[in-house]
Amino acid sequence: MGIKTLKSEIKTAGGNYKMQCTAGNNSIILDEPEELGGSNGGMNPGEALLSALGGCKYIIAKMFYQKFNINLIGLCIDVEGEIDMDALMNTVEKKNRNKDLKIGFSKITTKWFIDANNTKEEIGEFVEFVEAHCPMKDTIEDKPDFSVEVLGKKH
Amino acid sequence: MGIKTLKSEIKTAGGNYKMQCTAGNNSIILDEPEELGGSNGGMNPGEALLSALGGCKYIIAKMFYQKFNINLIGLCIDVEGEIDMDALMNTVEKKNRNKDLKIGFSKITTKWFIDANNTKEEIGEFVEFVEAHCPMKDTIEDKPDFSVEVLGKKH
Repeated sequence: MGIKTLKSEIKTAGGNYKMQCTAGNNSIILDEPEELGGSNGGMNPGEALLSALGGCKYIIAKMFYQKFNINLIGLCIDVEGEIDMDALMNTVEKKNRNKDLKIGFSKITTKWFIDANNTKEEIGEFVEFVEAHCPMKDTIEDKPDFSVEVLGKKH
Repeated sequence: MGIKTLKSEIKTAGGNYKMQCTAGNNSIILDEPEELGGSNGGMNPGEALLSALGGCKYIIAKMFYQKFNINLIGLCIDVEGEIDMDALMNTVEKKNRNKDLKIGFSKITTKWFIDANNTKEEIGEFVEFVEAHCPMKDTIEDKPDFSVEVLGKKH
């Protein structure tokens, strides 16, 4: 299959921050909550990143559970991220970043709710495998190269 | 505002991979395309991560453009990520990861389409600022601590 390029196109969906993100024939709406100046028309980008990470783990788990002989009855995954809002707001106010303060997530916790007829050890081994083979976790753990292009009006 | 915990809860939405990700009162549906065993009921997690990253840049840009005296007429952001599908599929087939192959995004390109009555230098300085102050880019560039908890059936 080789190298594949995935893409999301972001444009306004009205209001301050509400936006439509489109990939192929699928779209999601992102926004900020009202206390941050948005209209709560959708998740914020932080919640979308946690969804992407947890969603990727969910898919890898569904791809592999049979190979690990997991008798899966139910699977839910909660992903929580801790973010220092003061560090971000400080940036906004002062137009200058304090490099000592982390503005992104400082900690991400994944809670695996697995209902399966297996031992704790079997489930633990399975989760460990998925955690080590999740492309979106790999993206965050082992950062990609970043490239930026500044272009004019989009046609 | 202090440390805030954002959260996404992921559960099945039917089929192989289709899932509902819920944060507060907002939800998105993620899935895989048909060629990868899904039903194309929504973006895949890679596209969602690119949306989260681009969406965060979009919001920071909207927060700051006036402070940079950008006379903004229109803003669209495209985010593209390159991923080696063979590296991932190899993992799936062999149940064993080749550590030499990167399974996540190896490169992420952001294309800024800015329509504004400003000089190229002014726009360049503005984009540089946003790129350096985007919490989701910071999350990927400077990885957070990861924590994993394995729990039973979710109530």
